[in-house]
Amino acid sequence: MAGNSFGEAFRITTFGESHGDGVGVVIDGCPPRIGLSPNDFMRDMLRRRPGSSGFDSPRKEEDRVEILSGVFEGLTTGAPITLFIRNRDADSKPYEILRRLFRPGHGDYTHFKKYGHFDFRGGGRYSARETAARVAAGVVAGKILGPLGIRVVAYTLELGGIKAEKNDLEFIEKNPLYCPDPMVTEQMEQAISRARREGDSLGGIAEVFVTGCPAGLGEPVFDKLDADLAKAVMSIGTVKGVEMGAGLAAARLKGSENNDALTPEGFSSNQAGGILAGISNGDEIVLRAAMKPIPSISQEQHTIDRQGRPGRLRFNGRFDVSAIPRVIPVLEAMVKIVLADHCLRSRMIT
Amino acid sequence: MAGNSFGEAFRITTFGESHGDGVGVVIDGCPPRIGLSPNDFMRDMLRRRPGSSGFDSPRKEEDRVEILSGVFEGLTTGAPITLFIRNRDADSKPYEILRRLFRPGHGDYTHFKKYGHFDFRGGGRYSARETAARVAAGVVAGKILGPLGIRVVAYTLELGGIKAEKNDLEFIEKNPLYCPDPMVTEQMEQAISRARREGDSLGGIAEVFVTGCPAGLGEPVFDKLDADLAKAVMSIGTVKGVEMGAGLAAARLKGSENNDALTPEGFSSNQAGGILAGISNGDEIVLRAAMKPIPSISQEQHTIDRQGRPGRLRFNGRFDVSAIPRVIPVLEAMVKIVLADHCLRSRMIT
Amino acid sequence: MAGNSFGEAFRITTFGESHGDGVGVVIDGCPPRIGLSPNDFMRDMLRRRPGSSGFDSPRKEEDRVEILSGVFEGLTTGAPITLFIRNRDADSKPYEILRRLFRPGHGDYTHFKKYGHFDFRGGGRYSARETAARVAAGVVAGKILGPLGIRVVAYTLELGGIKAEKNDLEFIEKNPLYCPDPMVTEQMEQAISRARREGDSLGGIAEVFVTGCPAGLGEPVFDKLDADLAKAVMSIGTVKGVEMGAGLAAARLKGSENNDALTPEGFSSNQAGGILAGISNGDEIVLRAAMKPIPSISQEQHTIDRQGRPGRLRFNGRFDVSAIPRVIPVLEAMVKIVLADHCLRSRMIT
Amino acid sequence: MAGNSFGEAFRITTFGESHGDGVGVVIDGCPPRIGLSPNDFMRDMLRRRPGSSGFDSPRKEEDRVEILSGVFEGLTTGAPITLFIRNRDADSKPYEILRRLFRPGHGDYTHFKKYGHFDFRGGGRYSARETAARVAAGVVAGKILGPLGIRVVAYTLELGGIKAEKNDLEFIEKNPLYCPDPMVTEQMEQAISRARREGDSLGGIAEVFVTGCPAGLGEPVFDKLDADLAKAVMSIGTVKGVEMGAGLAAARLKGSENNDALTPEGFSSNQAGGILAGISNGDEIVLRAAMKPIPSISQEQHTIDRQGRPGRLRFNGRFDVSAIPRVIPVLEAMVKIVLADHCLRSRMIT
Repeated sequence: MAGNSFGEAFRITTFGESHGDGVGVVIDGCPPRIGLSPNDFMRDMLRRRPGSSGFDSPRKEEDRVEILSGVFEGLTTGAPITLFIRNRDADSKPYEILRRLFRPGHGDYTHFKKYGHFDFRGGGRYSARETAARVAAGVVAGKILGPLGIRVVAYTLELGGIKAEKNDLEFIEKNPLYCPDPMVTEQMEQAISRARREGDSLGGIAEVFVTGCPAGLGEPVFDKLDADLAKAVMSIGTVKGVEMGAGLAAARLKGSENNDALTPEGFSSNQAGGILAGISNGDEIVLRAAMKPIPSISQEQHTIDRQGRPGRLRFNGRFDVSAIPRVIPVLEAMVKIVLADHCLRSRMIT
Repeated sequence: MAGNSFGEAFRITTFGESHGDGVGVVIDGCPPRIGLSPNDFMRDMLRRRPGSSGFDSPRKEEDRVEILSGVFEGLTTGAPITLFIRNRDADSKPYEILRRLFRPGHGDYTHFKKYGHFDFRGGGRYSARETAARVAAGVVAGKILGPLGIRVVAYTLELGGIKAEKNDLEFIEKNPLYCPDPMVTEQMEQAISRARREGDSLGGIAEVFVTGCPAGLGEPVFDKLDADLAKAVMSIGTVKGVEMGAGLAAARLKGSENNDALTPEGFSSNQAGGILAGISNGDEIVLRAAMKPIPSISQEQHTIDRQGRPGRLRFNGRFDVSAIPRVIPVLEAMVKIVLADHCLRSRMIT
Repeated sequence: MAGNSFGEAFRITTFGESHGDGVGVVIDGCPPRIGLSPNDFMRDMLRRRPGSSGFDSPRKEEDRVEILSGVFEGLTTGAPITLFIRNRDADSKPYEILRRLFRPGHGDYTHFKKYGHFDFRGGGRYSARETAARVAAGVVAGKILGPLGIRVVAYTLELGGIKAEKNDLEFIEKNPLYCPDPMVTEQMEQAISRARREGDSLGGIAEVFVTGCPAGLGEPVFDKLDADLAKAVMSIGTVKGVEMGAGLAAARLKGSENNDALTPEGFSSNQAGGILAGISNGDEIVLRAAMKPIPSISQEQHTIDRQGRPGRLRFNGRFDVSAIPRVIPVLEAMVKIVLADHCLRSRMIT
Repeated sequence: MAGNSFGEAFRITTFGESHGDGVGVVIDGCPPRIGLSPNDFMRDMLRRRPGSSGFDSPRKEEDRVEILSGVFEGLTTGAPITLFIRNRDADSKPYEILRRLFRPGHGDYTHFKKYGHFDFRGGGRYSARETAARVAAGVVAGKILGPLGIRVVAYTLELGGIKAEKNDLEFIEKNPLYCPDPMVTEQMEQAISRARREGDSLGGIAEVFVTGCPAGLGEPVFDKLDADLAKAVMSIGTVKGVEMGAGLAAARLKGSENNDALTPEGFSSNQAGGILAGISNGDEIVLRAAMKPIPSISQEQHTIDRQGRPGRLRFNGRFDVSAIPRVIPVLEAMVKIVLADHCLRSRMIT
């Protein structure tokens, strides 16, 4: 009944808190005989790490993934794979104030109301730190998708109101913001610098693009591929909206404009975003996630304490200014996890 | 592994096809001693019924709900509740063409690719008809929410590009489009008429508004309340986007603008849409769903047959022009089902 | 959280009560393109039907299975299959006494304690009638197992203390008690007649034998094949014990006696009952279920009423004397359901 | 689809291998604000440890439980609790022979058939070592049951054919075999010594006795309390049979003998073993597990290699002679886990 697991056939259960021993994940359902070593995780863990871009939190997290179970002589065995990422940097003194006051926009208040007792240090369980476990699980999911030719890439469509107008997928990995438009990255960087100076934060929009996905993934009528993707993406703390294909814009189109005609060469357009009636149609899967500005800001804010009395909070932690770019590999990971799960559910892998 | 169930503690499994015997739902987990009779379903089934508004499909569906199990002497027993809605009007001859040609924008192609064999008559399993079972289940969910003071209402924010500017909740039930703005309903109706004449269809945006929801619903980190709502709403065939609270707009705000300050009297604003870190915060829950224009249009369209050869399809079934207004009670139902499930999961009901 | 579903990949949800409209089952996860018609159910429904043997309840249940969903043009579609068996004979007047008094050995008392409100007519939800839905689901499971060469047969090892000493599988279907020993069936029949005259009931032991099961079914460490079989069998109301292979007798053997040696020709013995470490080993699967005497007897019994006051109950319903032979097809069905589920989970079927 | 999780509301997922880094468990669904510290685990981990009785394997396992997540300032938070028990003694050289030859009675052959690749060292995932994680989870389950007054105790009814005739619950903790009969423990010890000298092993029977369980636990019709207990107990590697209450003996009783009469003072007998129609009736819960002799013996055995060629195996590891007494705390743990799960499912805890 508790909700720390996701997926049916490729099932992940994350655990751990920001300032506890570490965060981790148990993966149940990974097929046997897949090569897996700690080095496989390095690239994505680095991409998710704060400070990697120079534009976000200066915290140094050395995110080395330990494989605690499920791998023998370099290969998965079919047994549960446990990945653990120790916390290195755990000065929790700055968080003592949170024993008393709730941070606006954070889960402090709701966790207090729900559980009465919770680890508030650095967000504890609802810290972005938890996403490190998701990224690690996404690496394993990617090992399932790779041989099937399925590739997942996410990038920054918009940051602080500045939009990428061009979609140069080659350029994504060449800039720390994973922005596909070389003309706007500098503007985005300036927006970040400005917000940091103001002690404020920024929101943005990211897009995920999946190539090589065969037709047939998705289980009607509730575990539709788009429904599971929506849940996966919305379960990331910072996400407030999810769109598939044409998304919101489809609401303003006519059927004759929005229907993708079928031709012997494939679909003539992709308004659907690669999914029809909840099942992948073989075209590229396209989805977007709208992210709120992260709630941690260093401006003084109005709030209340645990007794409901008014208070003012000025909290100087080490914050990112924007969920982007760190959330990019998290988005990729969640999409990979959904796809790996549905590949196994559809018995595309035997 | 198949995906026809939704929910954990209040678990629904829908079944049935558009032109089969009927559609239905088994509800497992409904608490005992709740009054339930066939009449309880009439209002919502009527609202979902095509033709009820005069603006949609002229089909006449007499959607009487039979209670096949789980109720004894007018009260639920804790045993599974089975609701069944017989299909009345089942002329499937017009659909014979679909044995050969795939309709653009529909699930025909993907169902063929996934299953090889499927009931294509009227959309079969992926027909909007399936949502009748959801609406019926939503009525039972509402019986759980009612005594807790939780109320769910959905309405039309936008239809065919025409936006409601006013939010008069009183007016919603007074017009067949569930539009909260008396000034624009006529324009919306004209847009529908025009699209019908053109053999085309329209999309739109609906909002769901929940009052009376206590703080504490939602199970981090995957079964967050907003994540489950996103899945529930995205599992409705016509939905292509879901937003919580400020949604997409939050991506363009700063943290200092988007954070809802806490005061002794409650939150000073509701950008969050009533959910923080996946847990309800006691404020109103607000979400929006963007709906594509329904794919059934009577214009000729390009498509292919089962062998991949090109063809042209002009299909004159009995179509709605827009998912709105029929989808309004479906949205309400799905939100109610998620909330009832989380009330039970949180043990708010004992 | 409610428990009316069983299985993961081949998932059944039963519903319905003894004196309600009928009993039924939704099967989610059955592969598409399997031939299925109402006639397929006739043999097993007849075998389960009381009165079929002349030795049990004279009630006449015309157990015709209606297929309400999931089959199109004679083939399964991959959509949920709903099977419904209407109740014909529903005189519930004799049960009015149960509104007041609890029957010893029945679920009346526990259902009252758990739910406060329940359908007590003929046992309602906890009636043996519910097993009709299981048998129907077992027929569909059998359609999955058949092409794989897996065959499940159950028979009577012991009834009223009389043991079958011979195991003539040919003879099983030639006698109404499914007894494999021609020498003892008459004794068993006499025991039944005697118990009926005394207004009493009898227990017994049945064995299930599975041939053709490939090695590799079962998911360590909790969803082991034997663990799932134990649950499936113990979930039948009348069962009080389950043994795998040598079972209880293994507790008195030495390791050197109990280990099955491996040879190039296969295992040299089958103490394991075809399952090692929770995974099928390719040998025959053998399990036994011990059944209590059914609690419905016509002798006067001491009991209490809903207020806890003492009372005496003499209840003259229409009872079987023994769960055997009716339970035989139910046992077969549950074992088939577990095997079909694990074939799908192991992706032996694609 | 993989099977390493158990329970719905109190859900455990075990991981780890005998000769890997360690074994562990993630518990999802434990209520918040329960005191929990590493010391809480010491007693049960010690009881499960081989060598603790002087009658079993001389291996020294220092089974210290680390709490990796879910506890803050000594109290559970509602977040997943991860418990990890490092492996200390990991000489895996003796197991190299298992790369080639399958041990009779073990999971080597079936794991090879199912996965192709598996950690065979010391049984790897299917080692009794995995039960250390279950015992740790059982301690947490016990923390839920304790305040409700539910107490679970297991003891040895039979070992190597020697039966306890007396049931002195006081004596259980006073002897290393958890035998309730002071008159037979010496005989049991002699049987163990004799079997060890012969390089052989012994089976036995254990009983679990639950006091203080309220009426109302168990979810018909599949997640009956006895069905879930049967699965839980059968999922322990060594168990080949499970009986509830009168169990097998009930098969030889008449209904008039087996029905427990209700009286104003409670049930007049307890043939049912505390469960009626799958729901606890408020009486003591009684179940028995029959255990095979453990398959590890030091006598030479016939077997085959991975290519199916015959071979002989004499394997001198460090073995217990009998699963008893080590399995006693494992049985208690599994029963506690089932009960805690059903207490939460029944919302007996809020």
